[in-house]
Amino acid sequence: MEVRSKSYTYRTGVRWTDRKIGVISATGKPDILVATPPEFKGHEGIWSPEDLFVASVNICLMTTFLAFAERASLSFTGYEGTAEGLLELVEGKFQFTKIVLRPKLTLKPGEDAKKAGELLTKAEANCLISNSMKCRVELEPTIALGGN
Amino acid sequence: MEVRSKSYTYRTGVRWTDRKIGVISATGKPDILVATPPEFKGHEGIWSPEDLFVASVNICLMTTFLAFAERASLSFTGYEGTAEGLLELVEGKFQFTKIVLRPKLTLKPGEDAKKAGELLTKAEANCLISNSMKCRVELEPTIALGGN
Repeated sequence: MEVRSKSYTYRTGVRWTDRKIGVISATGKPDILVATPPEFKGHEGIWSPEDLFVASVNICLMTTFLAFAERASLSFTGYEGTAEGLLELVEGKFQFTKIVLRPKLTLKPGEDAKKAGELLTKAEANCLISNSMKCRVELEPTIALGGN
Repeated sequence: MEVRSKSYTYRTGVRWTDRKIGVISATGKPDILVATPPEFKGHEGIWSPEDLFVASVNICLMTTFLAFAERASLSFTGYEGTAEGLLELVEGKFQFTKIVLRPKLTLKPGEDAKKAGELLTKAEANCLISNSMKCRVELEPTIALGGN
């Protein structure tokens, strides 16, 4: 990671090992096994580029929300989310056409669910991965007030 | 993963654990620890959404190339590649504006380097992750003829 006045550079490596399998690496981070997915004649049980592309926007929504929630002093006890990416043929080539993000947020008792919903919407609008994708990204949040 | 005549759905989960850290999951695959990167007030040594976004296109170039090389009966002994993604402010919001892919391919002695280069170019043009990104993706391949 290199800083040049409000710009950042991210470097990752990939190395083929055998069949349709490889390993991704980044300095100081644990290697991750990756592969072509089964539907494209690859392997079961290994993270694929498709999975990681969809996961990247799922994580980014969470990390952007964490930053906004901190700034707004919103108290919550849980955040989990799913992301569902649709890959379709567009003019003869596959591309992701839609990703639906479904974050589930559990607030501390007494917290403001409306404010929490606004922060999630703001997080999606400012999610840098979402902003870097061609496809439509939809947000379907669930907000629960935790007991305690 | 679900098939509906030439379309595929990819699902991943994310769960916040503590601070700016979480875990991503996909059915039947090992969990991966993820976090906000240090430059956005997160953590060192953990995969970030930015890393995984850049890694996804790096892997996809490799897996697409593996498929094309197999079909073309190209023999090679090694493939490794780096991807470098540039994150910049565009109209006040961060987004990836450029990713440079640098695959290094080692061919079996006697193989055709020109044909290999063409297959890499074709793999980039058909890379579904590259096709799903807004940013420019550049290819800078290195092709070596291996000894034996």
